[in-house]
This record gives sequence, C-alpha cells and structure tokens, in this order.
Amino acid sequence: MENQIYQLQYAIDTFYFLMCGALVMWMAAGFAMLEAGLVRSKNTTEILTKNVALFAIACIMYLMTGYAIMYGGNWMLSGIEILSLENVLVESAGKGFEGDAVYSGASDFFFQVVFVATAMSIVSGAVAERMKLWSFLAFAVVLTGFIYPLEGSWTWGGKDVFGLYNLDDLGFSDFAGSGIVHMAGAAAALAGVLVLGARKGKYGPNGQVYAIPGANLPLATLGTFILWMGWFGFNGGSVLKLGDAANAHTVSMVFVNTNTAAAGGAIAALIAARILFGKADLTMLLNGALAGLVAITAEPATPTALQATLFGMIAGVIVVFSIITLDKLRIDDPVGAISVHGVIGVLGLMLVPLTNKDATMSGQIIGAVTIFLWVFSASLMVWYLLKWVTGIRVSEDEEQEGVDLAECGMEAYPEFMSN
Amino acid sequence: MENQIYQLQYAIDTFYFLMCGALVMWMAAGFAMLEAGLVRSKNTTEILTKNVALFAIACIMYLMTGYAIMYGGNWMLSGIEILSLENVLVESAGKGFEGDAVYSGASDFFFQVVFVATAMSIVSGAVAERMKLWSFLAFAVVLTGFIYPLEGSWTWGGKDVFGLYNLDDLGFSDFAGSGIVHMAGAAAALAGVLVLGARKGKYGPNGQVYAIPGANLPLATLGTFILWMGWFGFNGGSVLKLGDAANAHTVSMVFVNTNTAAAGGAIAALIAARILFGKADLTMLLNGALAGLVAITAEPATPTALQATLFGMIAGVIVVFSIITLDKLRIDDPVGAISVHGVIGVLGLMLVPLTNKDATMSGQIIGAVTIFLWVFSASLMVWYLLKWVTGIRVSEDEEQEGVDLAECGMEAYPEFMSN
Amino acid sequence: MENQIYQLQYAIDTFYFLMCGALVMWMAAGFAMLEAGLVRSKNTTEILTKNVALFAIACIMYLMTGYAIMYGGNWMLSGIEILSLENVLVESAGKGFEGDAVYSGASDFFFQVVFVATAMSIVSGAVAERMKLWSFLAFAVVLTGFIYPLEGSWTWGGKDVFGLYNLDDLGFSDFAGSGIVHMAGAAAALAGVLVLGARKGKYGPNGQVYAIPGANLPLATLGTFILWMGWFGFNGGSVLKLGDAANAHTVSMVFVNTNTAAAGGAIAALIAARILFGKADLTMLLNGALAGLVAITAEPATPTALQATLFGMIAGVIVVFSIITLDKLRIDDPVGAISVHGVIGVLGLMLVPLTNKDATMSGQIIGAVTIFLWVFSASLMVWYLLKWVTGIRVSEDEEQEGVDLAECGMEAYPEFMSN
Repeated sequence: MENQIYQLQYAIDTFYFLMCGALVMWMAAGFAMLEAGLVRSKNTTEILTKNVALFAIACIMYLMTGYAIMYGGNWMLSGIEILSLENVLVESAGKGFEGDAVYSGASDFFFQVVFVATAMSIVSGAVAERMKLWSFLAFAVVLTGFIYPLEGSWTWGGKDVFGLYNLDDLGFSDFAGSGIVHMAGAAAALAGVLVLGARKGKYGPNGQVYAIPGANLPLATLGTFILWMGWFGFNGGSVLKLGDAANAHTVSMVFVNTNTAAAGGAIAALIAARILFGKADLTMLLNGALAGLVAITAEPATPTALQATLFGMIAGVIVVFSIITLDKLRIDDPVGAISVHGVIGVLGLMLVPLTNKDATMSGQIIGAVTIFLWVFSASLMVWYLLKWVTGIRVSEDEEQEGVDLAECGMEAYPEFMSN
Repeated sequence: MENQIYQLQYAIDTFYFLMCGALVMWMAAGFAMLEAGLVRSKNTTEILTKNVALFAIACIMYLMTGYAIMYGGNWMLSGIEILSLENVLVESAGKGFEGDAVYSGASDFFFQVVFVATAMSIVSGAVAERMKLWSFLAFAVVLTGFIYPLEGSWTWGGKDVFGLYNLDDLGFSDFAGSGIVHMAGAAAALAGVLVLGARKGKYGPNGQVYAIPGANLPLATLGTFILWMGWFGFNGGSVLKLGDAANAHTVSMVFVNTNTAAAGGAIAALIAARILFGKADLTMLLNGALAGLVAITAEPATPTALQATLFGMIAGVIVVFSIITLDKLRIDDPVGAISVHGVIGVLGLMLVPLTNKDATMSGQIIGAVTIFLWVFSASLMVWYLLKWVTGIRVSEDEEQEGVDLAECGMEAYPEFMSN
Repeated sequence: MENQIYQLQYAIDTFYFLMCGALVMWMAAGFAMLEAGLVRSKNTTEILTKNVALFAIACIMYLMTGYAIMYGGNWMLSGIEILSLENVLVESAGKGFEGDAVYSGASDFFFQVVFVATAMSIVSGAVAERMKLWSFLAFAVVLTGFIYPLEGSWTWGGKDVFGLYNLDDLGFSDFAGSGIVHMAGAAAALAGVLVLGARKGKYGPNGQVYAIPGANLPLATLGTFILWMGWFGFNGGSVLKLGDAANAHTVSMVFVNTNTAAAGGAIAALIAARILFGKADLTMLLNGALAGLVAITAEPATPTALQATLFGMIAGVIVVFSIITLDKLRIDDPVGAISVHGVIGVLGLMLVPLTNKDATMSGQIIGAVTIFLWVFSASLMVWYLLKWVTGIRVSEDEEQEGVDLAECGMEAYPEFMSN
C-alpha cells in the first residue's frame, strides 16, 4: 500500500509537470501572435516563420546538447555522451519502479525544453523587420544548444561559472527565470540589435523618433493573453513539486501572485501612458501586463498578493519609461522585448530579497551581471561571426519591400490592400 | 500514511482548482476576441483595451474587497479587514499541515477571482462602439469590487440579502452561475445600454433596423471556441472537489453536459437562422453555442447528456428570437450579450428544477428577481452617476470617426484599407 | 484506507482524461483557424461555419449512435439501445463506489467524443471553397455517427470487421490514431474531392498549377500552434491511464515524442521547401509540423526522443513532395489535408513496427488497407448520394463570388478591401 501511495504521488507530480509544460509550450504561440501583431504587414510572414522554426530548433537542440549541458553534470560533451542523454530519459522509467525518482524524468525534460524556446522567442521580436531569416535561425541553434544551457547550469544545474563559483552558493535566487530566461533572452536580443542597427525610417537625423504602428492589434492582444495564461505554467511549474499540501499551496500562491502582478502591471502602464501621452495606449497596456509577469517570475512564491500587485505596478511604470528611453538611445526594438524582458528582468531579480530571506542583494547583482556578461558577449560574438560569414541584415530594397517576399516568397495578407 | 493520503487529496483538489481557474482566465481572451471580431474596425483597439484592463481591474478589486465581501462573512469591511484578507490566503497554508483545509485557500481565491472578470466581460460587449473608455473602467471598479461580490454572497457565500433572507435557504440553486454570473453581468449591461442609447445609424426613424457587420469573423469564431474551452473550467471547477470517485464522476458529467449543451445550442441556432433568414448565419451559430453554455451553467451535473443537448437546443432557438426582439425594442447590443447571458441566464435558472429536486421553481424565480433587481438598479445608479460626473458617451464626431483614435490614439488595423 | 487510495487513483485518472479531452476539443479551434487562414477571404465565413457546426454535429451524433457502435458491443442498434447509452454513462457513477471502474465512464466518453470531431475536421479543409454547406453537414452526420465509429470499433472496440477478423488480433497497432483517425479522415476527404472536382482556376489546360494563396497566414500559424498544443492531449490521453509510475512515465514519453516529432517535421519541411523553391515557405513549415505530429501518433510511446525527431523529419520531407504530387494529379486540396493526414497517416502506421515489437508490418498493411477501403468507399457512396439528391457543389457564379455570400450571407472581413 505504501508503494501505491508512492506511485500516486509520482503520477500527480508527473502530470503537474506535463500540464505546466503544455502551458509553457503555448507561450510560443503567444510570442508569435504578439510579434506578428506588432510588425507591419509586409514583415509578418517572416516573423511567423521565425517563431515556429525557432521553437522547433530549440526543442531539437535542447534534446541533443542543451539538457545534458544544463543538468547533465558536464558541459563539454562528447558525441557519445550527447546520444546517451536518451538513456537518461529512458532510465527514469525504471526509477519509477525502484522508488528513487519522484516524477518521470521525461516530464522534467518536457518542462525544461519549452523554457529554452521562451528565451529564444524574446530575441525574435527585437530583431524583427530587418534581419535575414536563416542567420537568425543559425543564431537560434547556438543560443538554445549552448549559450542558454550553460548559463542556466550555473543556478538551476548547480554548477560553477567557468570553474570559478556557483551562483546558487552566492545567494543568487531566481525562482522561475526573470534573469536566467528573460534577461538572458533580452541580452542576446540587445547584442543582435546593436550589431543590426535600427530599421530604416525609425529615427530621423535630428533625434526624431517615428512611430511604426503594428498591423494587427487584435493579434498582439491575443498573444498577450496567451502569454499571461502560459505564465501560470511557467511560474507554477517551477515549484517543481505539487504532491503534498505545502507544495500544493505554494503552487497556488504562485498562480495568485503571477496573475495579480500581471494585473498590476497592466493598470499601472495604462495610467502611466495616459499621463504621458494623453491616451489609453493599448500597446503599453500589453507591455505593462507582460512586465508585471516578468517582474514576479524571480520570486512568485514568497510575496503576499498585495505585494505582488505592487511589484507588478512598479514594473508597469518602469517599462513605459524604459521603452521611451531605448528609443532615445536609438536602440530599435519593434516589440519592446528588451525593456519588458531585460530591464524588468533585472528589476525582478532585485525585488527578490524584499520577500525571500534566502536571497541577498549582492548575490542578485552578481548573478545578474554574470549572466548578462556571458550571454551578451557570447551572443555578440555569434552575431558578428554571422555578419561576417553570411550577413545578418537584408538589403535596403528588401527591407523597403518587406522581408516577407524576399525571405518567404509570400505575403501574410495577400488580399488586404495596404494604405 | 493516513497523513500522506490526506496530503495527496489536498494536492489533487488544489491542482484541479488551479487548472480550472486557468481555463476560466482564458475566457477573458475569448470575450476579447469575440467582441473585437463583432465590432467595426474603427472601434477595435478600444474594445481590446477595455477587455484587458477590465480583467486587471477585476483581479485587483476582488483581491482588495470582493473576495472578503463574498466569502469573508462581512460585507461592510473596514480598511484593516480588507488588508487582512491577505491573512486568509496565508493562513490556509498552515491549514494544509493541520488537516483542516481540503485544498489551498489560495487556489480557491484564484478560481473565484477569474469568475468576477467573466461577469464584467459581459458588459463590455453590450456597450461597445460608443462608450467612453475611462467611465467604463470606473464602472468596472464598482461592479467587480462591490455589486457582484455582494449578490454572489447571497448564494455562494451563504449570507442574507440585506439582512432579509438567504437565497440558498429559499430553494434557489445556481450551480456555476447562469444567474449569479451571467444574468448579473447582463443586468449591468442592460442598465448601461439604456442610459447610453443606441449607436448612431443602428435604427431608422420608421422602425428600421440596420445591420452593422463585425469586421473580423475569424476572431469572433476563435473567441467562441476559447469560451467553449474555458467553460469546462467554469462549470467543471464549480463542483469544488474532484478527489474522490463520486466527485470525479460528477466533474466528468459536467464536462460532458457542458460540451453537449453547447453543441445543441449551436445546431439549433443554425437551423433557426436558416429558417428565418434563409442563410447559415455564422454569428447566430456562435451565439447559439454560447447560449447553450449559459443555459447549462445553472445545473450541469444532474441532467443526462441527452437532456443537456435538449436544453442547449432550446437556448439556441430562444437566443435567436431574443436578439431579434431586442433590436425591435431598440436596445442596441452590438454583440448580443444581453440575449446570450441575460435572457438565457434566466432560462438556465428555470431549467434547474426539471432535473435537480433540491431546487424549487419559486426559489429560482425569487433568486432571479432578487439578483436582477439589485444588479440592475445598483448599476443604473452608477451609470447615471458617471454620466453626470464625467459623461459616459463619446461625442458624435468621435463616434463617427471611431473611438479608437479618440480614446486610444491608434488604429487596430492601420494598414488595411476600409471600404 | 485502501478504498481511499482507490478513490484517489480513480480521481487522478478521471482528471487526466478530462484535461486531455479539453486539449483535444481545443484542436477544433486549431483546424478552424488553420483552414480559415489558408482559404481566400471570400470563402472564410463558410469554412468557419462548417468547423463550428461539424464539431457540434460530431458531439451529438457520437452521443446518439457513435459511442455505442464503437465501444458498445453492437454496431446495429435499435432505437432503445441508442437511448440506453445514457445509462452506460450514468452507470459508471455507481461503479465508482463499487470498485469496478478505474475512471469515470463519462470522462472516457468526453475524451472519445472530441476524437470524432478531429476526424471530421480533416475533411472540411480539403473540400473548401466550392462545396455546399448543408451537403457537407449532412456528410458530417453520417461520418461521425456511423462510418468512423464502425471502423474505430475494429481496433479500439475489439470487434470484428464485418464478422471476418479483428484488426487487433492481426497485429495491427495504432496507438492514438494515425490510421484510425487521421488517415480515415483523409480517406473521406479524398472521396469528397474526387466527386467534387478542383476549384475553378486552380489548374490550367496544359498541366499548369496556379497557387491560390491563403488570405490570413497569422491565423494559419495560430491554428498550427493550437493543434500542436492539443496533440499533447490527443496522444497523451491515449495511454488511457496515468495513475501509477509506469503509466505516468509513458505519458511523459508520449509528450516528449509528440513535441519532438513536430519539431523535426517543421525543420525538415522548411529545409526541403528551401531547396525546392528557394524560399522559407511558411505553409510548408506548418504542414511539416503537422506531418510530424500525424506520423508519431501511431506509436508515440516506444521510440526514443531522437527516433521520434527522425520520424518527424521523414514525415516533414514526404509531406512536401506529397503536396506537390497531389497537385500534379490535379487532386485539389486547398489546405494539404490529404497529404498531411492521409499520406503521413499511412507513414505513421508503417513506422510502428520499427520500435514496437507487438506490431507486425503485415498487420499494419492489412489494417491500413481495411480502414482505407471502408472509409473511402462508404464516403464515396455518401458523396454520390448527396450529389444526386441535393448537389454538393455551388454554382459557378457562387464560386466566383465566394461561398460566404451565397451560403452564409455575410463576409468574414467586410471592411478590408480586396485586391
């Protein structure tokens, strides 16, 4: 009978991982719709293609190298070791009967693999409307198969940073990845944007910033709702266990706080935009909700619901100013991804010590700096390498005409006449 | 070992609440897409903004006052009591270990908070295309923080109606909220529409009714599918328990009946519209499916699957006639929300005694009248107050031009040329 | 206490069925969006109408006759037996207390009923843009109420093929329905397309094939992501049990393999299309992902994750060539459904013996041929009958003008001007 109870717990925790993983997978659709809604119609097919393809690449690369690097105890794998990852997955089946594992290793892999895709999805929006598709996909291979898993291993895998120190031991705490996933994705995106340059017509010679409105705001709104929903899996699943009362309650608090932080971010950004621009700016509202979600991701379990609302509100205000500031700096990010995931990702890390006594401010700073430096510099090298080998930017004519025809050979809305 | 079993049951029931709550949260996206698809393109950004913002407001207000009013035993709360709601949420963690609670209080809060948003979403469609955004959001604050939680407390919170009687004790039964959520939302919407008046150009001087087609029917269809899916959580979660065989089977019957009532409503409305208009009217098909869902919500557990299909069919036919009738009465509801949620909400309540012997027809009538009178009259006062203080209707020019530019400063589809 | 453990297991397995069923129901939205995105705007309202209505019809017909035919032990039912199906559902409630059933019969019914709708959804895309709506719905009644349940009974219901042999006993294995659901749907679609003929303007007199681009590629991409997500329920739920360690791990492997096969299919199709057409063809990318999903559906549990990736890749390449080949044969399938679900459905069946020793290649061939012959010939008869009685193709004028106005009386995008 004890064995039956053990098996039930194993089944519940495994099912919980799978459901949360399915919700995180769904976030890939959220990023795709958000980004497709915020670009111009002539660049829509390409960004859809990028989003589907990067998810597929992330899944394959994480299976082949990423998971082993991040959790396998070894970051420089031989070919044989890579293939033996499969055995890790298969072995966990046996463990179920031996009483070692508390959930299926395959369910953990599924949950982790969809996280990688999230990090990569952040990049695709920031470099939209001017990047070569295949160079982008080549970058996706490196980020998902190597850059991200390595930095992830320093905290979640419990390994040392280049043999120096372990982020976990320094008091760095990042529950579900404000830094490890979101800021990391934004760091890679920032490197890309700097190498790539701004879109034609975005900035004038005398400091003007021209708005380039998104072509389909219902899609962008749908994408935000999808991300909001998927985030319950993202943060909720990161408790990593549900099958007893204490953990089940923690998962519940994570759901409540994730939701309320998003709500706070949305309202604060709406009001901030109203004060600044005089209008109820839908795109700022959406970015505010996402900022609230990113901010709570580093620690969704310990705040009270009112604290989580407040944290979300702070994030919602900051993200509006961050988007304005980046435009002043002529860092052209069509969807605001660097502000939402990067700036607010750092904010999220810094908020952790307020409610979680196990985290230290110094640990949070060291962690943030370490992760940023690695991801940014490694990405910068890869972007420059790609620029040198194949080029990363489409030609001026192709940018003018839209990357859809140049890269994909088809329009997203062939029948709708454009102004 | 007994404790282990208890903890497993706690974990399962908590997880069930969280998954159902995530599905109900998803309904917010459904309403947003449905309404965005059924309005004209020039009013789309504003309705998207309203839908995201109202969800956020609902979450914050229900945390601050609503949950305490509805379930906290006290409807006139001091500021200290409001803040102590947080303690209710935190306390339930401890209960997990003491063996009192059968699920996490935070998971219950999460499930309830997404219900409020549903009630408010119903309003937004009915007042579309002519209402001031900020007045609408002010109304959302009052409805979600006060009007809805108070009427909800009379049945689900077990409290008295203004100290007079308890709806529960009178034989009123409303399983998942045909009346408490859907008719209540429609009552608030009806009050708003009466104060607001019809859209320009909807009705002619000699009784003509002009169709104003929605701009994006794939969005409306997507929204309906999302609502259909989310409704499994809405009704299924309202069993409030899953962790034993009897309750697990009840939840299953609720899923089956929810699905089949929607199917019946869809087909009946499609056929009714075919007979009346000679065409397969997609918007009536969608409203028929939603009507089936609303009708079964008051009692999805006791009917057989064939009865549920039949109830859905009745709802699907009635909703078509209701939409036509409201137009004859010049009650202008752009998305049919008052018919779907109000008229059919009442139908749902009246169907309960047919299969549930604990409900009485008199109890259902008293409950429906009580809830309607309170929500309608309280809403009417708030709408009039808002009209007097800030105004609730945009200017004629703004309505002509579209509320998107006036209120949000951006078009939903800036590149697609309009006819 | 033993009873408590039994009840917990019953609850978990029931909940697992319900969650997986909700995901499969969600696939109906996926098909609707995919197909709506891939047709021209003038035929969009009608395909949306078809998708909602066919789902509703499938649910009602499977309740009335389908489930009893497929699992009830009797394929020629009297009216009394049909109505007594309800008793089957109700009885299972009692079983929960008696210790016979390991999950609620109603949850099983819910899971199975959404499968039927999938099979029917496959048909609707293939016959798009030229078929009469009501004839299509009449076909849906026959397929979902009779043709599909009968062939499903030969494997999953354990019954004989016309009293001759049982597919199960011949070594035929089809885990979640590459053949029983997907190829069957494609066989019905192929019969329809052959009777119906190609769309006007698709093929020229000298073997030319003219591309007819879809009107809304973001919708098609969204549909693919929805299907990808829903497929976790489709394949994951087909393990039919989760509540012990071995089954929980199997479900996990099914999730991993389903995901990775889709990823492999997407990338392989993207590269194949790049080589053949010189462009990153988004529609081929989407069809590649779907092909990977169909291919793994016949056996998602026994392959390793790398094998699943490889199987997906093979499917992704084959589907591109299949789509090209069908066009050469002038079989006009606007969304590629016959290739994705039919050709790749067969591929999926043939891959089973590579990793599952219980399946034999001869069993797979016999099963595929038997199912195809039955569904294709029965469908052909029904299509011809419908052609003779009511006609199945709209008039040339209606096809030119678009079926939306002729059949539904409303445009999907009335405000967006068409080129």
